[in-house]
Amino acid sequence: MAKDLVILAYSGGLDTSCILKWLIQKNYDVVCYMADVGQNEDFKKAREKALGVGAKDVIVEDLRKEFISNYMLPAVQMGLVYENRYYLGTSLARPCISVGLVNAAKKLGAKYISHGATGKGNDQVRFELSVYSLWPEGKVIAPWRLPEFFERFQGRSDLIEFAKHENIPVSATPKEPWSTDENIMHISYESGVLEDPGAIPPTGIYKITRDLKQAEDYPSMIDINFEKGLPVSVRIPSGHEKSLVLTDPLAVVQTLNKLGGQHGVGRIDIVENRFLGLKSRGLYETPAGTILHIAHVDLEAYALDREVLRVKKYLQDKMADFVYNGFWFSPEATYTRKCLELSQELVNGMVTVQIYRGCVTILARKSSASLYNKDLVSMDIAGGFSPEDSTGFININALRLKEYSRFLKQSK
Amino acid sequence: MAKDLVILAYSGGLDTSCILKWLIQKNYDVVCYMADVGQNEDFKKAREKALGVGAKDVIVEDLRKEFISNYMLPAVQMGLVYENRYYLGTSLARPCISVGLVNAAKKLGAKYISHGATGKGNDQVRFELSVYSLWPEGKVIAPWRLPEFFERFQGRSDLIEFAKHENIPVSATPKEPWSTDENIMHISYESGVLEDPGAIPPTGIYKITRDLKQAEDYPSMIDINFEKGLPVSVRIPSGHEKSLVLTDPLAVVQTLNKLGGQHGVGRIDIVENRFLGLKSRGLYETPAGTILHIAHVDLEAYALDREVLRVKKYLQDKMADFVYNGFWFSPEATYTRKCLELSQELVNGMVTVQIYRGCVTILARKSSASLYNKDLVSMDIAGGFSPEDSTGFININALRLKEYSRFLKQSK
Amino acid sequence: MAKDLVILAYSGGLDTSCILKWLIQKNYDVVCYMADVGQNEDFKKAREKALGVGAKDVIVEDLRKEFISNYMLPAVQMGLVYENRYYLGTSLARPCISVGLVNAAKKLGAKYISHGATGKGNDQVRFELSVYSLWPEGKVIAPWRLPEFFERFQGRSDLIEFAKHENIPVSATPKEPWSTDENIMHISYESGVLEDPGAIPPTGIYKITRDLKQAEDYPSMIDINFEKGLPVSVRIPSGHEKSLVLTDPLAVVQTLNKLGGQHGVGRIDIVENRFLGLKSRGLYETPAGTILHIAHVDLEAYALDREVLRVKKYLQDKMADFVYNGFWFSPEATYTRKCLELSQELVNGMVTVQIYRGCVTILARKSSASLYNKDLVSMDIAGGFSPEDSTGFININALRLKEYSRFLKQSK
Amino acid sequence: MAKDLVILAYSGGLDTSCILKWLIQKNYDVVCYMADVGQNEDFKKAREKALGVGAKDVIVEDLRKEFISNYMLPAVQMGLVYENRYYLGTSLARPCISVGLVNAAKKLGAKYISHGATGKGNDQVRFELSVYSLWPEGKVIAPWRLPEFFERFQGRSDLIEFAKHENIPVSATPKEPWSTDENIMHISYESGVLEDPGAIPPTGIYKITRDLKQAEDYPSMIDINFEKGLPVSVRIPSGHEKSLVLTDPLAVVQTLNKLGGQHGVGRIDIVENRFLGLKSRGLYETPAGTILHIAHVDLEAYALDREVLRVKKYLQDKMADFVYNGFWFSPEATYTRKCLELSQELVNGMVTVQIYRGCVTILARKSSASLYNKDLVSMDIAGGFSPEDSTGFININALRLKEYSRFLKQSK
Repeated sequence: MAKDLVILAYSGGLDTSCILKWLIQKNYDVVCYMADVGQNEDFKKAREKALGVGAKDVIVEDLRKEFISNYMLPAVQMGLVYENRYYLGTSLARPCISVGLVNAAKKLGAKYISHGATGKGNDQVRFELSVYSLWPEGKVIAPWRLPEFFERFQGRSDLIEFAKHENIPVSATPKEPWSTDENIMHISYESGVLEDPGAIPPTGIYKITRDLKQAEDYPSMIDINFEKGLPVSVRIPSGHEKSLVLTDPLAVVQTLNKLGGQHGVGRIDIVENRFLGLKSRGLYETPAGTILHIAHVDLEAYALDREVLRVKKYLQDKMADFVYNGFWFSPEATYTRKCLELSQELVNGMVTVQIYRGCVTILARKSSASLYNKDLVSMDIAGGFSPEDSTGFININALRLKEYSRFLKQSK
Repeated sequence: MAKDLVILAYSGGLDTSCILKWLIQKNYDVVCYMADVGQNEDFKKAREKALGVGAKDVIVEDLRKEFISNYMLPAVQMGLVYENRYYLGTSLARPCISVGLVNAAKKLGAKYISHGATGKGNDQVRFELSVYSLWPEGKVIAPWRLPEFFERFQGRSDLIEFAKHENIPVSATPKEPWSTDENIMHISYESGVLEDPGAIPPTGIYKITRDLKQAEDYPSMIDINFEKGLPVSVRIPSGHEKSLVLTDPLAVVQTLNKLGGQHGVGRIDIVENRFLGLKSRGLYETPAGTILHIAHVDLEAYALDREVLRVKKYLQDKMADFVYNGFWFSPEATYTRKCLELSQELVNGMVTVQIYRGCVTILARKSSASLYNKDLVSMDIAGGFSPEDSTGFININALRLKEYSRFLKQSK
Repeated sequence: MAKDLVILAYSGGLDTSCILKWLIQKNYDVVCYMADVGQNEDFKKAREKALGVGAKDVIVEDLRKEFISNYMLPAVQMGLVYENRYYLGTSLARPCISVGLVNAAKKLGAKYISHGATGKGNDQVRFELSVYSLWPEGKVIAPWRLPEFFERFQGRSDLIEFAKHENIPVSATPKEPWSTDENIMHISYESGVLEDPGAIPPTGIYKITRDLKQAEDYPSMIDINFEKGLPVSVRIPSGHEKSLVLTDPLAVVQTLNKLGGQHGVGRIDIVENRFLGLKSRGLYETPAGTILHIAHVDLEAYALDREVLRVKKYLQDKMADFVYNGFWFSPEATYTRKCLELSQELVNGMVTVQIYRGCVTILARKSSASLYNKDLVSMDIAGGFSPEDSTGFININALRLKEYSRFLKQSK
Repeated sequence: MAKDLVILAYSGGLDTSCILKWLIQKNYDVVCYMADVGQNEDFKKAREKALGVGAKDVIVEDLRKEFISNYMLPAVQMGLVYENRYYLGTSLARPCISVGLVNAAKKLGAKYISHGATGKGNDQVRFELSVYSLWPEGKVIAPWRLPEFFERFQGRSDLIEFAKHENIPVSATPKEPWSTDENIMHISYESGVLEDPGAIPPTGIYKITRDLKQAEDYPSMIDINFEKGLPVSVRIPSGHEKSLVLTDPLAVVQTLNKLGGQHGVGRIDIVENRFLGLKSRGLYETPAGTILHIAHVDLEAYALDREVLRVKKYLQDKMADFVYNGFWFSPEATYTRKCLELSQELVNGMVTVQIYRGCVTILARKSSASLYNKDLVSMDIAGGFSPEDSTGFININALRLKEYSRFLKQSK
């Protein structure tokens, strides 16, 4: 009888290699799926490793452009920030990878998708809610939530022992005492020695951004162009008084990552609230994302009407929660995203940004679409403004306050 | 017959000196009121100037502690940020000064309060809504909104000519081509050459923060202690491996201003939406305020329950608008402030912050009150957590999404 | 020299007739504009009266269909209710009439629009904000806010005297001791004897709905069909076991008004907050509007996803305020309306409603688009549901609560 | 060895009697707990039945006053309505009963609490989240979610067979084809023949409210007094031109239930969104609750400042969701409740209500605390109001709209 086919989200690491072997031992056929979302990974080596362990096949799919164009840049456009600070780099990658997993599963006639996400984290939720949305009849095998698995592999040493016993290659270099998740938008660091929110993180932890001390000591000035809230091109200094205009989304992100990294831009160290109700401490470095977000916020405030901005803010806060919690494909996120996109019709223009010593500083902004009216605001030009009107405006606004004051006195 | 008494919010500058004279010519008695909210000002000289012009008296009141304790630090506690970026330095000072003005008016039996705020700005609204809330029977004279005044004085040169004619001393140094508002929390810069949002501001404009290039090249590490969301003490490095603990609010703010200034912390350049409906471009430098706000956001996320944080966020966004628009003493701000204070009961603890090269970097935080549970979140400890529960949690959350997916397919 | 032309929003009543004459005396040419939005009015007689007073012309425009299709029914679709209770009948008519006024002004080359709305009310704001949005270069003459006018006409008797002196016909029947505004959606009653919120309104005040005591003593059952949240047809009982299907929006509203009126449906007596900051007491009768709104709320809850419903609710509450305050044509209302329309794509189906003795009772609803899944919810059918999942769902939701409980104990 | 003790939330019905027996067979000691929250129940008979089945003891606790004072009336005060229509009668009772269960468990040294709530419903969540909040170390046995139980008892007939086999008395009268939950605030009806939202409910289903046809044919006028938003006394007509003033909360609710029931007040038929993500159809009758809520909404709008009302509305919508979903004792509900209570400080006064033919009609309201100012709003009295101010107010509000209009033209 034919075995059931499982598509395993494979990373090449110890955990998913052991899961691969374990699934084979549980009598499944397993095809490994690796999404290239920009992480620093030797896909060829990982592929060989998986085949060596017994995978029927290994699919490596380059989703970098997909991730940038359909997740990362729309998140900039929508202004998504979780709990005031986190740009959702991992949260955005999960639905993108899930599309790849589900497509593979459907194409190959698989019955299951499996992953190595743990039982306390957000990623299990993000993967599975995405998978179930895209493929409601699909099933998920999450070994780290199966007692048979997690009782057997109670720590890393159990995995290593299993790997050795099963001839799964184990990296000689000891694992860093924290875990990371990497893609072209960001790298996250959590767990291990980082679990104590009161402990200052070890130096040298960050990979793509320099420490402020080592940051370049000249400022870089760039111009970012937005259309409907989406960054569409970036002008970047390039050698002696020259500049380079990038329009390819991948090139934009890669270049801003490099530039931001050199200037030490985009690090945060936060305690965040996971969807499961736990609090966890995480470090993130998001150079390009940080630059793009800061520029977008500036242009948006310039271009949008005040009250539209407020309605949009409510929606963006909701959307950030939806995305963090794994609901990218939910009805509410689908709806809210449409509304947020609608809000960006006028967010067109250019922002001039200085990147220097960890700081992203807005210097100037231009927009054909802004409601900004220089004459109107000018102190030196009346610009169609009658100062007497302000008297009426203030007096009417004071009506309610005077009534309240009157009442407070009365009630004493 | 006795003349009506006016309390004039006096700055010592050209505008309010001319207004002073004009009011006297309109047959009012005028007492000048100067609030010391930390601006760089020669109060003695200003006093003499006002008396020279003909003021019946000049009151100089030191409101710095009042401003810090009742406005600035509560704003940190409440997390007030206008349109994502502006810490409301001017907006907070206006109600504080208004209390001083109204107290003087009541004490001296004045009938009017007068000020030199212009007709297009926010400050006229903030002053007057505060005054009317505190003193509903009071009246305001706003010369810049009276045709008789603004038609006569159409530009700075008209004021200078009037001043010369009336023997009002005029500063020999030419005015900077922008206007500023200063207090112990911040300095703002707007108008003039800054009115074009697409023009990069002239260098040398900022007064209390160094340019990043000139910032100190060593990091400073400080610890900030909060009780109920209010910063109550700061430990600051002081010479060779020593440190200093400050608890006096004035000293805390002054010291953080100095330190932040040396490190180039706290500048922003934004376009904001005024209450009147205009957009205006402003530059702000807020060293101490920026440091305290960033530390508070971090501790709050650590200490508060996730859902309390969300309810609180709605309230803080509303409150920021109330304060910006001048409604500090309104029923809604009074109410919302009480709610925000209630949210901070558990925001107790210490945040360790690095200040360096324009960046305020959170390094660690401690709190006896946090809902953070290291065992629960640990990857290595079960901590009373059953991974199987996550399966149920995810499956139930997926119910609604599967229904939606089912429906979408059906409806194709 | 040619006189400036004014388009006057004319009602045929005493106020606007006097304003008409007064404008003529101020040397304006005046064209009267009467919008038929369904009020009970003898337009022919009003026309003759205006011409008799001296109007250059009188335009009577039937805007009933326009009002129903572009304002009233979209308000049902968007779910607009002001302060929990008021369906915005007057607020919706004002922008509709303003379009007519502005079109007339543009067509005839008028420089001014004038109206008889008073200085304390909402309607002046709604008219003028609509006019300025549609015709920013236009000007408004609001006599009731001009000292020259309101000081001369301090009460109704001054107007009557003026009318008599100027040969303006004055109705022989004494005015009711309250004021009303009527259109096909509702009639409002306010002012005069109604100003005391503690006084029970006089009987006989309502015009189109019967008192409960006189309501028909049989129930009427109707079916209302919605497409994308808009009511598109209504099946109504018609004589002996027959029924009638109406699809013409005007017929739908007229018929539901009649039916609702017979059954005493749609009255409210409220105190509301005006945009100017005053509170006022108003009575409204809105038979068709009430029936349609109640049916829509029911279908929407049935058809929409839970979380979409919540996002939409925020938007509808904002929109209700925008509309009440006169901002129908503002950027924020334009944007929010688009978002609300987007939310209604799936609100298709039929609601069965009983109308009887003042009550609109939902009996049943059907929708091809609902996310309701009878099998899933059934107590007797598993329907793909695993009860064990609920355990995990509850336990994970309890995590945060247990931490809080643990903390509270600790901190005692 | 001593057996573990279970406190079983016992109803006297078939399900919990079978669960009782089953728990005993699983070797637990079981004490049955019955909360009297006003349901129509023969507690004596139920007690005997439980003892007959083998309960170690049966606790019957009268929680009616507790329920009214600490849950029902605060819900009126807070204005809690779920999804626009449902007054949360069941949702409010669950935490109240949970307190009783936990108190019993702690007192008797029990290890477990058990209940008969099903796996698809809200009540399991409400019970368990409440229990875990109050007693984080407690454990819950939910038989309807244990495969061993629900696979054995797949339908009602399995339970009946088991009951017969175990000599558990089974009611001779056949069960109604729907299920109900009853307390002093409301009765709910769901499941069975009601599961089809398109089916008109059978007549005769409602227990405490008359059909409109049978409602009394005279109106009843009552006065309801509120202090800080809580109903504190009710004046009710009592025979020939007499009236009765009730202040005891139990008497108030019982009397309004009776009166409302006679007049056919308080029925709804809705589809609601359960916390688990299912939609379900429910019928509710809530006579006293409906009257009190409608009166409270009216007084609140009268007494509160406009902007306070808006902030409060956000909070009440959040709180309604918290309560519906079972989070009564959560940090967010605890916090939000405090904020909502704060908002009610001024909600003092009296509302006059007519109850008649299914309708609760507000006739008048009085409040010493209202911000309503009759002079200010009066059309006949200036009341300190300057109509010219409205011109400025409108013009300034139009600024933003004109800019938008200007921009739209430009961009065409």
